Amino acid sequence: MAVLPASPEPGAPGAFPALVDQHCHGVLRSGPEPEAFEGWLTEAHFTPRGRGTPRPGSAPEDSGVPVSYFDTQLGFAVRRWCAPVLGLEPHCPPESYLARRAELGTPEVTGRLLRASGIAAFLVDTGLPGHLLTPGELAESAAAEAHEIVRLERLAERAADAARDTHSFLAEVSEAVRESARTARGFKSVVAYRCGLELTPAPPGTSEIYAAADRWLASRVPGGRLSDPVLERHLLWSAVRTGLPLQLHTGFGDPDLRLDRCDPLLLTDFIRAVAPYGAPLVLLHCYPYQRGAGYLAAVFPHVYADFGLALSHTGARAREVLAQLLELTPFGKLLFSTDAYGIPELFLVGARLFREAMTELTREWVRRGAWSPSDAERVARMVAGGTARRLYGL
Amino acid sequence: MAVLPASPEPGAPGAFPALVDQHCHGVLRSGPEPEAFEGWLTEAHFTPRGRGTPRPGSAPEDSGVPVSYFDTQLGFAVRRWCAPVLGLEPHCPPESYLARRAELGTPEVTGRLLRASGIAAFLVDTGLPGHLLTPGELAESAAAEAHEIVRLERLAERAADAARDTHSFLAEVSEAVRESARTARGFKSVVAYRCGLELTPAPPGTSEIYAAADRWLASRVPGGRLSDPVLERHLLWSAVRTGLPLQLHTGFGDPDLRLDRCDPLLLTDFIRAVAPYGAPLVLLHCYPYQRGAGYLAAVFPHVYADFGLALSHTGARAREVLAQLLELTPFGKLLFSTDAYGIPELFLVGARLFREAMTELTREWVRRGAWSPSDAERVARMVAGGTARRLYGL
Amino acid sequence: MAVLPASPEPGAPGAFPALVDQHCHGVLRSGPEPEAFEGWLTEAHFTPRGRGTPRPGSAPEDSGVPVSYFDTQLGFAVRRWCAPVLGLEPHCPPESYLARRAELGTPEVTGRLLRASGIAAFLVDTGLPGHLLTPGELAESAAAEAHEIVRLERLAERAADAARDTHSFLAEVSEAVRESARTARGFKSVVAYRCGLELTPAPPGTSEIYAAADRWLASRVPGGRLSDPVLERHLLWSAVRTGLPLQLHTGFGDPDLRLDRCDPLLLTDFIRAVAPYGAPLVLLHCYPYQRGAGYLAAVFPHVYADFGLALSHTGARAREVLAQLLELTPFGKLLFSTDAYGIPELFLVGARLFREAMTELTREWVRRGAWSPSDAERVARMVAGGTARRLYGL
Repeated sequence: MAVLPASPEPGAPGAFPALVDQHCHGVLRSGPEPEAFEGWLTEAHFTPRGRGTPRPGSAPEDSGVPVSYFDTQLGFAVRRWCAPVLGLEPHCPPESYLARRAELGTPEVTGRLLRASGIAAFLVDTGLPGHLLTPGELAESAAAEAHEIVRLERLAERAADAARDTHSFLAEVSEAVRESARTARGFKSVVAYRCGLELTPAPPGTSEIYAAADRWLASRVPGGRLSDPVLERHLLWSAVRTGLPLQLHTGFGDPDLRLDRCDPLLLTDFIRAVAPYGAPLVLLHCYPYQRGAGYLAAVFPHVYADFGLALSHTGARAREVLAQLLELTPFGKLLFSTDAYGIPELFLVGARLFREAMTELTREWVRRGAWSPSDAERVARMVAGGTARRLYGL
Repeated sequence: MAVLPASPEPGAPGAFPALVDQHCHGVLRSGPEPEAFEGWLTEAHFTPRGRGTPRPGSAPEDSGVPVSYFDTQLGFAVRRWCAPVLGLEPHCPPESYLARRAELGTPEVTGRLLRASGIAAFLVDTGLPGHLLTPGELAESAAAEAHEIVRLERLAERAADAARDTHSFLAEVSEAVRESARTARGFKSVVAYRCGLELTPAPPGTSEIYAAADRWLASRVPGGRLSDPVLERHLLWSAVRTGLPLQLHTGFGDPDLRLDRCDPLLLTDFIRAVAPYGAPLVLLHCYPYQRGAGYLAAVFPHVYADFGLALSHTGARAREVLAQLLELTPFGKLLFSTDAYGIPELFLVGARLFREAMTELTREWVRRGAWSPSDAERVARMVAGGTARRLYGL
Repeated sequence: MAVLPASPEPGAPGAFPALVDQHCHGVLRSGPEPEAFEGWLTEAHFTPRGRGTPRPGSAPEDSGVPVSYFDTQLGFAVRRWCAPVLGLEPHCPPESYLARRAELGTPEVTGRLLRASGIAAFLVDTGLPGHLLTPGELAESAAAEAHEIVRLERLAERAADAARDTHSFLAEVSEAVRESARTARGFKSVVAYRCGLELTPAPPGTSEIYAAADRWLASRVPGGRLSDPVLERHLLWSAVRTGLPLQLHTGFGDPDLRLDRCDPLLLTDFIRAVAPYGAPLVLLHCYPYQRGAGYLAAVFPHVYADFGLALSHTGARAREVLAQLLELTPFGKLLFSTDAYGIPELFLVGARLFREAMTELTREWVRRGAWSPSDAERVARMVAGGTARRLYGL
C-alpha cells in the first residue's frame, strides 16, 4: 500500500491513485455567509441563529459558546482537513475558520479546496437547486474533468413545467431521457425520498402512466415535486432501458425521508426485474444499511455500491463504515464519491477521509497477513476511480 | 483528554467529569438472594436453579459448573469492576462474589458501589415494581442528588386502579400529568413494549379516547397493564404538551417486546408531528439501532439519544456501541445513562464502561489527529452530564 | 488464551480446542473445473466466463486480468489460508492456485484441507444437490466424525416425489420425520428462502394441512420445491415436536432470498410459540442481523446462534462480525460452523478465520483487563465445540 503523502500529487509515483468522484453536486458561486455555513454541515433543516427558534442541542454553560453543527464528526473533520489548506492550524476555532474563509473569498477557497482534494474527475448530479457552479466551472476550478448525471425527478418536473398537456409531458420526458442518454454519463433517482424503496417492480403500463400523469399535472402547482409512484417507476424503467448506469439514493439524507424506507434491500425485487436489461444500478450512501448493500452487490452482477456522504458525516469513524462496505461487496463493485453539495469543504473532507480510511484499513490487513500488498494497492485503485472510469466510460 | 484515574474523584481536576445518570431505576432494599442474583444480569425471564426447568445454555462438562448469566459480557463486567470495590480480586469466581456480597449486606454493598460510580445525579424512573429504594434514599446512599421521571403507563394504570368510571379515569390522568409536570423532571414511556413504535402520529380525538378508555376499563383486571394504542397516544401527547423531556424506550429489552418493532426509526412520523410543541424526545438504549437513532438526533432538533443498558450488556464491546452512536449524533445530543435496576452493580458497571469507552475512543481519535484534545474533553463533559443538566434543568 | 500455533494440532496442549462444525454440507467428489471454481466462492448465480454474458465488476484496465469472485474477502482468504496447505505461497495468483489444485487432484486437495482445518466433528446438512461426499466419506477424508442434519424441505420434496396421493404424502412426511429423529442429530429448515421468516406462529390445523398438500401436489412438477407456508409450518412444528435441535437459515445467502425477510427477529413470535416444547432453535449465519440474533439468544433460553458463512465471506473483517455476536449472546449459546459446501477450502477458511478472530478478540479483551485469561479459554472451548457437543449429544 502506498504511504499517504503529506502533499498528495494525484498520479505521482507512490501517491494515492487519482480519485473519480462518482456522485456529487455543484458548489455555491458565492458565500455562504458565515452564519449560514454550518447549515451546509448537516442534513437537518437549518435556520441561522437569531432568525429562527433557539436550537436544542446548544450547551452554552459547557464552553461559553453555543454548540452548533460544527460539534459533529463532519464539523470536526472540516476543521481538521480544510483549515490547513486555508493557511490555518488544524482544529482552529470555527470562528477563525469562517473569518479566514470570508477573507479569502469564495473563488479562492473553492479553488484551493478542490485542487487539494486529489479528485481528477467529477460526475455531477445537476438536479439540485442553488446558485451553483456548472460541471464545467467546477472542472475548471479543480483543474479536473467533469461530466453530468441527470436527475430523473428534475427532468420530469421540468417537463411538467413546460407541458401543455399529458401527452406533450410524456413525450417530453421520453425525449429528455433519450437526449440525456446521449450527453450524460448516467441517471440518478431520489425515489427513496419521494416514495420509499419498496417499489412495485414491474414497469407500469401505458394507460397507467397516462392516468398517473393526468392526475399529477392536474393537481400540481408550478415547481411542485414529483412523488407519484407510477411516474417514478416510469422514469426508472425509462432510464434502465437506455443501458446507462442508474444511481439510486439509499440510506440517510435529510429529514424529508423515512430512513427505514430507504434500506436498499427494499429494492431487491426491482433489482431482479431490471437484471435482463443490463443497466448497472449504483446504490448511493447506503448508511446505515451498508452491509445489506454489500450483499446486493455480491449476489447481483449489475449492482454496485458507493458510500457518498456516509464517510464525510461519520468523520473519525469513516474507517469502520468503509470496512463494513468491504465485507461483502466484491472489490470491483465499490465506488468512491463525496456527495459534496454547496461548499467545497465536502469534496476535500470526503476525499481525505476515504484516502485515510482505505490506506489504514488495508495497511492493517496487510500487516496481519490477510491481504497482500499488491492486492491492497490494486483494490485501492479500483475503488478510488478505476471501476468508475470503466462503469461510466470515462 | 483527562487520564482515567485509578481512584476517580468526580469533579477533581484532571478527573473524568461527574456523571448525570439520565435514566435509571431504584435498587432493592434487601437482597437479592445469591441464587436469584444472576436474574438481574439478564433481560430474560429468570427462574433460579432448582425451582424451574433446567436452563438450556448450561454446559456442565466444560467447567464443572453450569454456565449461567454470569457468562455474558455483563457478567464479566460485574466481576471486573465491582469485585475490587467489595475488596475482592477482579474476575473472582461468581461464588466468591456472591458470598462477599452476602457478608457485607445490601446497604453496605449499595453504598460502596453507588459512591464508587462517580454519578452525581440520578434521574429515576419510578414506574418499575419491587421493594426499591426511593429516589431520595438512592441519593442519600450515593451522596448525590436524585430527581423523578414519571412513567406514563404506570400513571395511567394507577388512575385506572382508583377510577370509578371512564370520566374520572381520564380526569385523573390529566391531573396526574399536570401534577407530575410540576414535580418531576420528565416523562418516560414504554409504548415500545406495549404497542411497538409504529404509532399513528396524530393525537387521538376526544371521543376516540373515551371509547378506548371505556373498552380498556371494562376488560381490565385490577393491576392490568395498559397496552391500548389510543390511550398510549393520548398519554404521549399529554406529556408532549407539558414541554418536559419525554424519554422513549427503543431497542432491546426483555422478551415481552418484539425488537424489530422497537427500531426508533419507526417513530419518525411521531417525531415530525410533535416537533412544533418543543418537548425534547430522548431515545433510550437504541441497541442495535443506534445508528438510526443517531440519524434522528442529527436531523430533528428536538431529538436526543442515550445508550442506557446497551453499554452494560455489551461489556468489552461497549466502546464500539458508543462509537456508533458518536457517528451521526451531534455531540450535544447524546446522554449518559445506566438504566440500572434492582442491583447497584449496574450503576458502577454502566458508569465505568462509559468512562473507559469515552476516554479510549477520544484518546485514539486525538492520537490520529481527527479530534483536538480540547474538543475531546468538551464532548466528554457534554455526554457525561452537561447536556443532561441543561435538558432537565438540574 | 492459548497462542495460535503455526501448525495447529487440535487437542494438543496449548492448542486451540478441537472444532465441531455444527452446520456444513458435502464437498464435490471431483472437480470443480478451474473455470468453475470461483462460482463456489460466491452466493451469486455464476456462469463460467465464455459461457454466459460478460460479468459487470470486471476491471481489465486495472490489472491486466478481469476482476473475478476471487476479488472478495473470501477469495483473498482462500489464497491466504489454503495456498500454503497445497505447498504454495500465501496470496499466490488465482491461476497458480487453480493449476496446483488440478495437479494434486480432488481427493488429495480435499484430504489436505480437511485435515488441516482442525475440525473434529461435522454435522452435515445432506439436503443440497451435487455429486457430494456423504457424511461418512467426509469423516474418513478428514479423519474426524460426522453426523447427519436432515433438511426438512428436502424430506418433504422426496415424499412428494414418491407419494400416490395427499394422504400417503403426509403419512410419509410424518414417518420420515420420526425416522430422522432416530438417526440424525437435528433438523434444518430453509423456510427463510421459501417464505421469509415472518411466519404465522401457531401450528396449522389438520384440514389446513390437507388442503395445502392437495394444492401443492396438484400444481407441482416433479422435483419442484416446497414453498407453501402452511406445509412449511407443518414441517417446522413436526421437527419441534421431536425435541431435537432445529437449525434455521437466517440472514444472507444466495439471491433467491429477500434478505430483509430473513432477519431472525421476524421469528420472534414463532420462537415464543415453540418455547414450551423444549426443542433448541439454532439461528444460522445471521449476517447482517447478528446483533438481533444475539438478543434472541440472550432472552429466550431455547435459542442459540451460529455464524456459518458470515465469517468466511467477510474474511479480514471476520473478527468484527464475531465480536458483534459476542455482544449479547450468552457465551454458552454461540456455536462455530463453516456452512462449507462444494469445495473443501471453505472448511479450512471458516475454521482459520474463526480461530484467529476468537484468539485475537479475547487476547485484546484480556490485555485490557475486561476478561480474565481463564474465562477467555473457557469461552473459546464452548464456542469451538463444547456447546455443540452438549446440544447435539455428540
